[in-house]
Amino acid sequence: MRIGVVRETAAGERRVAMVPEVVSRLARLPAEVLVASGAGEAALFADADYTQAGAQVVEPDTVYGTADVLLSVGPPPDDLPDRVHSGQTLIGLYRPATCPELVDRLAAAGVTLVSLDRLPRTLSRAQAADALTSQANVAGYRAVLVAAAAYPRFFPMLVTAAGTVRPAEVLVLGAGVAGLQAIGTARRLGAQVRAYDVRPETREQVESVGGTFVTLDDVGPAAGTGGYARALSDDEQRVQQERLAAQIARQDVVITTAQVPGAAPPLLVTAEAVKAMRPGSVIVDLAAGPYGGNVAVSVPDSTIRTDNGVTVIGAGNLASDMAPAASTAYARNVSAVLAVLVFDGAVHVDLDDEIQAGIVITHAGERTNP
Amino acid sequence: MRIGVVRETAAGERRVAMVPEVVSRLARLPAEVLVASGAGEAALFADADYTQAGAQVVEPDTVYGTADVLLSVGPPPDDLPDRVHSGQTLIGLYRPATCPELVDRLAAAGVTLVSLDRLPRTLSRAQAADALTSQANVAGYRAVLVAAAAYPRFFPMLVTAAGTVRPAEVLVLGAGVAGLQAIGTARRLGAQVRAYDVRPETREQVESVGGTFVTLDDVGPAAGTGGYARALSDDEQRVQQERLAAQIARQDVVITTAQVPGAAPPLLVTAEAVKAMRPGSVIVDLAAGPYGGNVAVSVPDSTIRTDNGVTVIGAGNLASDMAPAASTAYARNVSAVLAVLVFDGAVHVDLDDEIQAGIVITHAGERTNP
Repeated sequence: MRIGVVRETAAGERRVAMVPEVVSRLARLPAEVLVASGAGEAALFADADYTQAGAQVVEPDTVYGTADVLLSVGPPPDDLPDRVHSGQTLIGLYRPATCPELVDRLAAAGVTLVSLDRLPRTLSRAQAADALTSQANVAGYRAVLVAAAAYPRFFPMLVTAAGTVRPAEVLVLGAGVAGLQAIGTARRLGAQVRAYDVRPETREQVESVGGTFVTLDDVGPAAGTGGYARALSDDEQRVQQERLAAQIARQDVVITTAQVPGAAPPLLVTAEAVKAMRPGSVIVDLAAGPYGGNVAVSVPDSTIRTDNGVTVIGAGNLASDMAPAASTAYARNVSAVLAVLVFDGAVHVDLDDEIQAGIVITHAGERTNP
Repeated sequence: MRIGVVRETAAGERRVAMVPEVVSRLARLPAEVLVASGAGEAALFADADYTQAGAQVVEPDTVYGTADVLLSVGPPPDDLPDRVHSGQTLIGLYRPATCPELVDRLAAAGVTLVSLDRLPRTLSRAQAADALTSQANVAGYRAVLVAAAAYPRFFPMLVTAAGTVRPAEVLVLGAGVAGLQAIGTARRLGAQVRAYDVRPETREQVESVGGTFVTLDDVGPAAGTGGYARALSDDEQRVQQERLAAQIARQDVVITTAQVPGAAPPLLVTAEAVKAMRPGSVIVDLAAGPYGGNVAVSVPDSTIRTDNGVTVIGAGNLASDMAPAASTAYARNVSAVLAVLVFDGAVHVDLDDEIQAGIVITHAGERTNP
């Protein structure tokens, strides 16, 4: 079996799906590993590092042409269906709900499409393969660094000979993996951290990493399936925005991480709420992307300064900013997925397996997962 | 008595010498406070904030023309002697050793020059006025944020379902105020921190903030006066550089903060040492400025990437990056200095006072402090 590592093509994507330190694990499947020349460069892994780990470095086209399994991490290129051929297995973060047409074309091309974002995350034996968690962990940590670097005052309380400096007040919206990592990191830096989530069952997790749970009157609960939140009704959302605005005006830093699977991210911070913040305040919107964001005025992959002096950072792919760390975690997740899919040196699809039923999107010419 | 707050003119200087929250303390001296229009803008203090605090906002020239005491923070403009007049008191960070000609001209102009960098820092009643400490505190904190944002991996150790991530290894060179704040902040973020200083008596302070003290064979001790280090001989410095290079090659992040009063900053990190570091490593040089730096390849106020993938950040004025916090601390220091200098609404120079003997550089047409 040949496992190929593609060179990512999406703008701003610096991650790579496999890193040298994990290559040796794949050899044990057993498998040969082919790496597209330059694939790891933006993540600081040189071609020579892969060669030394036992992989072969080849031209990018050779990877698509000859690999049995293709590994990727970022959004796929538009012409992907033309590059692949029947019998290949594609493993990546494909977010099939966002690209139904591409999925249909891949099914027609006869490839097995495995999308890690569809992993049944609440299943404990799936955790080693949980790429959404590993990437959200990076993004949540990074969000705090980005916020602290943009914030022109201290996060920790300081007691000095000339007086005391109060700690920064940080509000984290959404207490999933990224939110919890952001809460913990902001606490590490000494900030006072509040957090809000429509799922009341997250209170305990928020408190376990040092945050104070914020309850909004007349909003929620809104737990959905698979550990995610459900989308709120328009009325619920309006009340939520108003209640949040009162909290946001008092914050120095707001970090938003709310996602609803298969839907646009919920709008949590309105333009009016931003206008009520003090000069020097910072907002980091981890949901900012092509389908919207949590903050009305955020712009994906851009930092803006509002008229009232608030810095708003649209940061939908912060994991890519820490490409070496994010890629290493992702490669370990991929290795765990391969351990589920591969038997005796070949991919064996078994849709009775709960993990495979989640992640296998197309197989044998069919769409297997709606 | 009229106290004037100038608008800073040095490139990149965003701080302001007085902030609205401290204006009311000056009123009690008693004094009127005149603020140059726009003086606080880059530090996020609007003219209206000063007016509300009881100050008068006037044209910048009016401040120089009519104030009895002039407050500043950054490097003075070249034409300062032409702007001031006999009998005025100037309070700022003038670093007289770096500008002897300017000092002579100010003496001839009949002004009283008070330079806060000459404060006897080991005197406990001087601590509230210690502007070098307050600004170094900001710079040391900021250095870690800048380093962590440039470093593409995690600072803390992470234990996840897919494996463990080792913590970053951070080396801090120079364990003065900035160094100790950097050690403490890097520890807060979860890094493993080593620190080196030629003054062995700093070991206890390094350990008290969570760092591991590094001892170099055959180098030092080199304690100087006033709590500072003395300059090393050429031979001592060469041995120090070689011993440090062996440490530096293993580090993910190096933060350098070494200063010797009245001399160029010591060169601690040679070009060869930088070449031996791993791709993705980060160096922040807090000493990088017009008189050199601690790192051979650093460029003041610039970030460079070396051929071997090391990010080197020349960051000699990080306090200015956190202008609101740095200015607030500085304004409190200035208020403490004024409490020493002012009696019954006027400046009274008393060179028998130990603090004044340190900070008063020129008075009554004479250079009073060499």
